[in-house]
Amino acid sequence: MSTIATYSVTGMTCGHCVSAVTEELTALPGVSGVTVDLVSGGTSAVHVTSDGELDPKAVAAAVDEAGYQLAAE
Amino acid sequence: MSTIATYSVTGMTCGHCVSAVTEELTALPGVSGVTVDLVSGGTSAVHVTSDGELDPKAVAAAVDEAGYQLAAE
Repeated sequence: MSTIATYSVTGMTCGHCVSAVTEELTALPGVSGVTVDLVSGGTSAVHVTSDGELDPKAVAAAVDEAGYQLAAE
Repeated sequence: MSTIATYSVTGMTCGHCVSAVTEELTALPGVSGVTVDLVSGGTSAVHVTSDGELDPKAVAAAVDEAGYQLAAE
């Protein structure tokens, strides 16, 4: 069964940013889909569909690798 | 002798945008260098160093290819 988790990511401004984050998250094991509600310069919602739970640290690392940060909770 | 021309480009927001515009302009014949003063969401100044004058239409087409527009004069 697929799980959809939503993460808040700051600092994304354009479609290139969306592509970078999508690419890194899609590369995680178990991830089958990524969609982004872009809020340019604000906090964007990133929806990740995966087969099972993801390691929060792996998600944070993927977002960081793309050049962005998860929003503080 | 090299010529440096400055163009105003709208809609660029981040480093990815700078890379896209730089890549397209650098591909034009005679262009030896491109630098961008990014004004996120505003009008950015793009400086193009070339060997001789560039065709304004070719510059506009390259910017368009990157996904942006020259600012209206």
